[in-house]
Amino acid sequence: EDKVARPAVNPNDPYKHDPARHPALKVNSAKPFNAEAPGSLLADNFITPNDLFFVRNHLPVPKVDPKKFRLQVGGKQFALEDLKQKFKQHSVIATVQCAGNRRSELSKLKAVNGLSWSHAAISNAEWTGVLLSDLLTSAGINGEDYKHCILQGLDTDGEGNPYEASIPMETASDPKKEAIVAFEMNGQELPLDHGFPLRVIVPGTVGARQVKWVKMISASQEESYSHWQRKDYMLFSPSTGHDTADYDKAVAIQEYPTQSAICEPRNGATIEGSEVTLRGYAWSGGGRGIMRVEVTPDGGKTWYEADMHGDEQQKRHQQWAWVLWEVAVPVPDGASDMSIACRAIDSSHNSQPEKLESVWNIRGLINNAWHHINLKVDNED
Amino acid sequence: EDKVARPAVNPNDPYKHDPARHPALKVNSAKPFNAEAPGSLLADNFITPNDLFFVRNHLPVPKVDPKKFRLQVGGKQFALEDLKQKFKQHSVIATVQCAGNRRSELSKLKAVNGLSWSHAAISNAEWTGVLLSDLLTSAGINGEDYKHCILQGLDTDGEGNPYEASIPMETASDPKKEAIVAFEMNGQELPLDHGFPLRVIVPGTVGARQVKWVKMISASQEESYSHWQRKDYMLFSPSTGHDTADYDKAVAIQEYPTQSAICEPRNGATIEGSEVTLRGYAWSGGGRGIMRVEVTPDGGKTWYEADMHGDEQQKRHQQWAWVLWEVAVPVPDGASDMSIACRAIDSSHNSQPEKLESVWNIRGLINNAWHHINLKVDNED
Ligand SMILES: [Mo]
Ligand SMILES: [Mo]
Repeated sequence: EDKVARPAVNPNDPYKHDPARHPALKVNSAKPFNAEAPGSLLADNFITPNDLFFVRNHLPVPKVDPKKFRLQVGGKQFALEDLKQKFKQHSVIATVQCAGNRRSELSKLKAVNGLSWSHAAISNAEWTGVLLSDLLTSAGINGEDYKHCILQGLDTDGEGNPYEASIPMETASDPKKEAIVAFEMNGQELPLDHGFPLRVIVPGTVGARQVKWVKMISASQEESYSHWQRKDYMLFSPSTGHDTADYDKAVAIQEYPTQSAICEPRNGATIEGSEVTLRGYAWSGGGRGIMRVEVTPDGGKTWYEADMHGDEQQKRHQQWAWVLWEVAVPVPDGASDMSIACRAIDSSHNSQPEKLESVWNIRGLINNAWHHINLKVDNED
Repeated sequence: EDKVARPAVNPNDPYKHDPARHPALKVNSAKPFNAEAPGSLLADNFITPNDLFFVRNHLPVPKVDPKKFRLQVGGKQFALEDLKQKFKQHSVIATVQCAGNRRSELSKLKAVNGLSWSHAAISNAEWTGVLLSDLLTSAGINGEDYKHCILQGLDTDGEGNPYEASIPMETASDPKKEAIVAFEMNGQELPLDHGFPLRVIVPGTVGARQVKWVKMISASQEESYSHWQRKDYMLFSPSTGHDTADYDKAVAIQEYPTQSAICEPRNGATIEGSEVTLRGYAWSGGGRGIMRVEVTPDGGKTWYEADMHGDEQQKRHQQWAWVLWEVAVPVPDGASDMSIACRAIDSSHNSQPEKLESVWNIRGLINNAWHHINLKVDNED
């Protein structure tokens, strides 16, 4: 067992039900627990192992008795066994990405608020559960009649306020969007850190709306009034400051844009030889696939196209999984260092902005500028 | 009547059935006819008047007898009156954009192949017709069984080969994608230049797939084998040359990315006063809306957020219409000229690339780099 032994627990600690975690995870915050795998490991597996899947908890992990647990959907309640036995099961391979992925690059430019994620606050898994659209129908909720679907978790703050978010009802009620209430992750029972016994998966949408430990789902004409929906997770212009940010006018982040990163070699690594092989991931939200990934060793003058592999079975408009990619780039004769950037172009031909300055924002959200690494070249024989 | 009188027609001219056109249109090619409105007029109307809607013809306008006309769908044939009477009518406000819009900016950087469009090869109309998904169902075609929907026009080249394209069956068969076979444009019978008696509208998709004068619709496991599907309308990397372009490996353009342009003032105009009011359009493909439009007078250091107006009724994932926008920007004291750029951010948080160099490609397609204008400032009292 390669988990870290849990320290003795203070019975008054609200985090006392947090589980043990894999020692390879890089911890950005211990309480609440937020951690990512080393970026260099990420491109090793199309399906991220559960133990290395990034963890983004807003609050303590709640303790749940699965026998007593009931999911509330509108006016109805469902026991776990009901969900597993009485509904058609649905599996979807979907990448989940934190809105704060790659925030650390933005904070080097100018300070931002939020956890200092590197580029591994993104992972890919196969999720199994029940279509959210089936659950809504079963509870007598007609998607046409409402604008938003509210999702509330069992995790609460010190005053008992639960984590909550909402997604557009158009997304929740359309079976082709494949939003599910999941009870399995990669064929295993959902881990404690990933929402045991149930979490919502909303493919193509930012992580913050894919509510873990979900206990209540309802329909509304208004977005969730939670802090996370109304006062956070909104993308402002680079020219908007904390003093001018108008959260009442801004739009809550839902769909993710085109993203990619170089996983190997690590930033700062030393390479040798006449070429360097780069590997990484690329993904886009909204069911869009990746059309092309390319890397440049000269600031965008020359691009090398990468080979990609992903889930060839995913259909257009339902391409929820990332692709992993690989490409060899020549090392210029006599070079002592190289700066290499990657970008992806998705199936809607949306690409990534070149500069961090173009995407910088006060909360450091959704950084999808070209991803750079710097390498040292060992020229010794 | 403000149409141009048609010159005497040579009976052997394949273009002899081409209609008269509005004199304000700027002609990029007379035969086949390709023309756009002056860019400065475009932001005057949320719905583009039919006469000012850009025209992109690949071939001569065909002559059609509407009484004898039959639309072939799979093994079935439909008379125009059948379509109008026996199916539920569906209207959609959808922006259509040529893949070559804004090509002229790219060709200034480095030569590209194609018509030299300015930024008005985009227009917005309300289209009325029959849902393509209803027609397919009526012809016994189950979208799940096929990969592509072939669309063939009545317009032919000198050897009798018709214009043809295809769209993914997932798009064609999903009523939420709102692809229609249209017989009306802004409440009027479809004009000759826009496909009389029938054209396909595929909202959110590049113009080249929205086949005009459509006569045949069928289902296939393969994309259309037409030149326009297989050897054109593909987006290559800036590093791909005519010698290295592999059309067999590349992907046919379907969904459009985020786009915007400044319509007023015109590029090169002289302004006076302490501020300048800018107006333009912004749009994204795939049913994505526009979250924000902003302009910068200093190369991206400072952004001014624009006010937008569009169709507030369009729902998420079905935002097919552009928005028009307006913003006032201060004129720096003593400035003799200004360079101003705009960019839009769509509802998936995809934005536009900064530089033309980032999007340049051999065919000059899908230029969605920041759109620039240069202004002269009159400082005389
Ligand atoms: Mo997040
Ligand atoms: Mo086009």
